[in-house]
Amino acid sequence: MSVVVELTIFPLDKGASLSPYVARALNVIRASGLPHTLGPMGTCIEGEWDEVMAVVTACFEELRKDCTRINVGLRADWRAGAGGRLAAKPASVLDKLDGPGGQG
Amino acid sequence: MSVVVELTIFPLDKGASLSPYVARALNVIRASGLPHTLGPMGTCIEGEWDEVMAVVTACFEELRKDCTRINVGLRADWRAGAGGRLAAKPASVLDKLDGPGGQG
Amino acid sequence: MSVVVELTIFPLDKGASLSPYVARALNVIRASGLPHTLGPMGTCIEGEWDEVMAVVTACFEELRKDCTRINVGLRADWRAGAGGRLAAKPASVLDKLDGPGGQG
Amino acid sequence: MSVVVELTIFPLDKGASLSPYVARALNVIRASGLPHTLGPMGTCIEGEWDEVMAVVTACFEELRKDCTRINVGLRADWRAGAGGRLAAKPASVLDKLDGPGGQG
Repeated sequence: MSVVVELTIFPLDKGASLSPYVARALNVIRASGLPHTLGPMGTCIEGEWDEVMAVVTACFEELRKDCTRINVGLRADWRAGAGGRLAAKPASVLDKLDGPGGQG
Repeated sequence: MSVVVELTIFPLDKGASLSPYVARALNVIRASGLPHTLGPMGTCIEGEWDEVMAVVTACFEELRKDCTRINVGLRADWRAGAGGRLAAKPASVLDKLDGPGGQG
Repeated sequence: MSVVVELTIFPLDKGASLSPYVARALNVIRASGLPHTLGPMGTCIEGEWDEVMAVVTACFEELRKDCTRINVGLRADWRAGAGGRLAAKPASVLDKLDGPGGQG
Repeated sequence: MSVVVELTIFPLDKGASLSPYVARALNVIRASGLPHTLGPMGTCIEGEWDEVMAVVTACFEELRKDCTRINVGLRADWRAGAGGRLAAKPASVLDKLDGPGGQG
């Protein structure tokens, strides 16, 4: 009954150096205690729908403190059934690769 | 102080005919009374952050009734200042086009 | 055999006023002659995969002339069968709405 | 002068078990030799714009062999300057976290 959400959030009014703002959002995510993984293009968070969406809103509120334009991207994959999908989803793909596994 | 959110939501366990499910989500959006526009790849909704996100969750709950895997995509553009951006955003682009305006 | 692609493209190094850059991309799209519709959060383009992707690259090349960081978002829905889906996709949803149709 | 692209591609006409199709796309990505990382919600690929977009098209062509409806999502972050950003982007965020680093 878990959802995996990939979240991308950054201001559009602060120039091209976005990592300080992404770090502030990641601090909020870490404080939530929900399982998450940081990637090159976003952070994946797993939990129940309501708890993950509450974290998304908390990230937005954090940036709203001092930003005047904020871009948010969210992609969610909800599936009835067990959790643990941050690890299980990539593993299920790697199992099916041709030849020896690995991510290159 | 409004956010414009483009929402895409559909099940992954019901085959390739998605419009009945998109229509159910759009019914939920219409019932909210928030301004919205239906496009070829999603529906844009405008309002305060909390009210738009409540509609997103209501769409999800509607599909969760009978779907076992649901894909959600959301892109949000929040900007301090006036609302009315569902119309103002495209108009601002059209104003700046080369030659006679129009969307082709 | 057509694909509908929603394209969002803007620079991250030019501040929060993005419409001049979106207009330059839209000029490129218009010059392609492909059917397209401008929405609040992106422009939908319809055509064969290769011709639509060539337009996406042309939009990128246009902004690369003077931007040092560019964000691109693209969502594509490809379906074997007839074209005309920029209009047919929303119409198929509206047909299935409860009560009198309309986009609010 | 590199772009980092996160790619999500899956069929909509094959039911809710998507990993065999994701694995076929990942085989194509691996064969390209471009640096990439597989995540829970997509695969990030780094390279020059044209070479990454050629891989995206090759993934699409692979699934088109036997799928009648295909969903593609792509988010790209292009930046003038050095490559190596699949690792550098998350590292730059982790450097700025409050307290001891780590991805939880």
